[in-house]
Amino acid sequence: MSFKILKKCPATGARRGVLKTPHGEINTPIFMPVGTRASVKAMSPDELVDLNAEIILGNTYHLFLRPGMDIMEKAGGLHKFSSWDRPILTDSGGFQVFSLKGLRKITKEGVHFASHIDGSRFFLGPKESMAIQRTLGSDIVMAFDECTPYPCDHKQAEKSMLQTTEWETICRDQKLGEGQQLFGIVQGSMYKDLREQSAKDLVNIGFEGYAIGGLSVGEPEGKMFEVLDWTVPYLPEDKPHYLMGVGTPKQIVEAVARGVDMFDCVIPTRLARHGSAFLTNGTTIPIKAARYREDLSPIDENCDCYTCRKFSKAYIRHLMNVGEILGMRLVTMHNLYYFINLMRQIREAIAEDRFAQFRADFGK
Amino acid sequence: MSFKILKKCPATGARRGVLKTPHGEINTPIFMPVGTRASVKAMSPDELVDLNAEIILGNTYHLFLRPGMDIMEKAGGLHKFSSWDRPILTDSGGFQVFSLKGLRKITKEGVHFASHIDGSRFFLGPKESMAIQRTLGSDIVMAFDECTPYPCDHKQAEKSMLQTTEWETICRDQKLGEGQQLFGIVQGSMYKDLREQSAKDLVNIGFEGYAIGGLSVGEPEGKMFEVLDWTVPYLPEDKPHYLMGVGTPKQIVEAVARGVDMFDCVIPTRLARHGSAFLTNGTTIPIKAARYREDLSPIDENCDCYTCRKFSKAYIRHLMNVGEILGMRLVTMHNLYYFINLMRQIREAIAEDRFAQFRADFGK
Repeated sequence: MSFKILKKCPATGARRGVLKTPHGEINTPIFMPVGTRASVKAMSPDELVDLNAEIILGNTYHLFLRPGMDIMEKAGGLHKFSSWDRPILTDSGGFQVFSLKGLRKITKEGVHFASHIDGSRFFLGPKESMAIQRTLGSDIVMAFDECTPYPCDHKQAEKSMLQTTEWETICRDQKLGEGQQLFGIVQGSMYKDLREQSAKDLVNIGFEGYAIGGLSVGEPEGKMFEVLDWTVPYLPEDKPHYLMGVGTPKQIVEAVARGVDMFDCVIPTRLARHGSAFLTNGTTIPIKAARYREDLSPIDENCDCYTCRKFSKAYIRHLMNVGEILGMRLVTMHNLYYFINLMRQIREAIAEDRFAQFRADFGK
Repeated sequence: MSFKILKKCPATGARRGVLKTPHGEINTPIFMPVGTRASVKAMSPDELVDLNAEIILGNTYHLFLRPGMDIMEKAGGLHKFSSWDRPILTDSGGFQVFSLKGLRKITKEGVHFASHIDGSRFFLGPKESMAIQRTLGSDIVMAFDECTPYPCDHKQAEKSMLQTTEWETICRDQKLGEGQQLFGIVQGSMYKDLREQSAKDLVNIGFEGYAIGGLSVGEPEGKMFEVLDWTVPYLPEDKPHYLMGVGTPKQIVEAVARGVDMFDCVIPTRLARHGSAFLTNGTTIPIKAARYREDLSPIDENCDCYTCRKFSKAYIRHLMNVGEILGMRLVTMHNLYYFINLMRQIREAIAEDRFAQFRADFGK
């Protein structure tokens, strides 16, 4: 068993666990910074280690197009190519190719698509996705799924979910690399019966972990929590549960309470590049605003990150407003520290039997 | 005496020295990375310390406009504002305002100009430049001068040089901050008689150091060396000599041979952002080129910088070509390491009486 639950919250569904991978253990619940194109935007691998990022995410679609799989093969995989020797999870590329509206054609075998870069034509299906992720050498491989848009009627959602299950069966049959773990992805839009069926079908196939896909696609936040309430109970308790592409600090706390162990999201890095910096309570401040022009205090007096220990809001505001790269670097570092530290606090709260209180107090 | 010469080259004009400043000593000959807007582009202050940058340069014109002197005053100067506690040299702002062709009007008192950002009107003269640099709190303050374009006829060059001397006299009369050193700037375009007169006049005024301005403005390289040959002999031997805005590795080696102790230039940082990376012999390679697509070796096998120890040309090329910030960071770090390491090699060569050989071998 590569996943071990160390502690369960007596009052909620929260779990404190450890997942073993070929590149080391990760402590759950965990947040995975997003390194779409073989780099977590604005950060170096050593800075991510300093931030105590235990695992990062890479995107199959982007890496397949650039730098391309010939180079990745020659380099010996994504870890060596990007000098990152901790665990990596890669997505299947499905989400990205389905987003290429007007540039893609879906068949039962997969998706024909045109590159968003130069229009070159490619095909991506479950077999291709597995082959690419095998070359990437990620520790956790995601099954190839179709992510339905929101809203989506029941008929379309069912058809898509059944197609996903078929593809995931094919994924399961492909040969993976040494130690690679395959996670299945539950779909079914916002429908209880479809989520239930998808979860049951995937459990029948059998995966090393289970992701909940198709959320954070525009639905109201309450709907996201409802889908988690329906879905997680059908997932094996002794396997990791991963909520894809989510979310805000509050959404993460709420999903942990519902039994989710893993998260990834571009929020901390993307918001940083636009100048939004997280505060302890999970809200953000717009660091470029005129009111911080002469503010010589750090972003967050209570934060111990490099940015907050060394630099003022006035300095960071100046850097962002004149377009100095260091500005984006400093806010990115602060925001990632915030998310990684939030997960540490969540893990400690679960370990110390006070997660329900942590959840109740969060954001106040 | 704040400047001490430790060793002179027996065969050339090169000197190995130490300059004391309120924020620590710097070892000469030295290269100063350029931090125009309170940040050396793409670098953090800690990375500059890791690179062993002993002093950086700040630009009065840019800092005067943004973030502005009210904030700088409140922050307690440029060191505190930018979290850099090693020495800083600031230019006078003269070079930048004279470059604002069509946006500036020169009088005997100084320069009326319109901000390149929003057109707001300002005035900068010798008194204003000294007041700003006093607020910035730089360790080395540059006198306010006029830099003539190239080519420039003798009459215009003479008039400009005399105006500069007048302004530098005013600068000398201004009250500076505790420990701040004022450097005069020799002008006189490419004319021997004018350079001689300018140097003599400045020595009469008396400064803590002497800069050679008005070079690297488009003249042939041989002309630059000729002007150095004429000018340096008129500068006090026991004061630091600073060649402003220069240059390429070869130009630096040649200027050191002519008695220059200090250099600043945007070449390593600017070229890095365009993907040009320095090799041991002082040439550059275009890291974005297709020929490096599958090249898994470092930029320079002989380089010990962070970039070369950890990353391949193929990875850096990928990052630069997809526009990841880390790409610019890694090449900037490598190029600055190259320049700082070049100066260390020059200092060692002088100390060990083998600079003439180092110069003869350089670039081969």
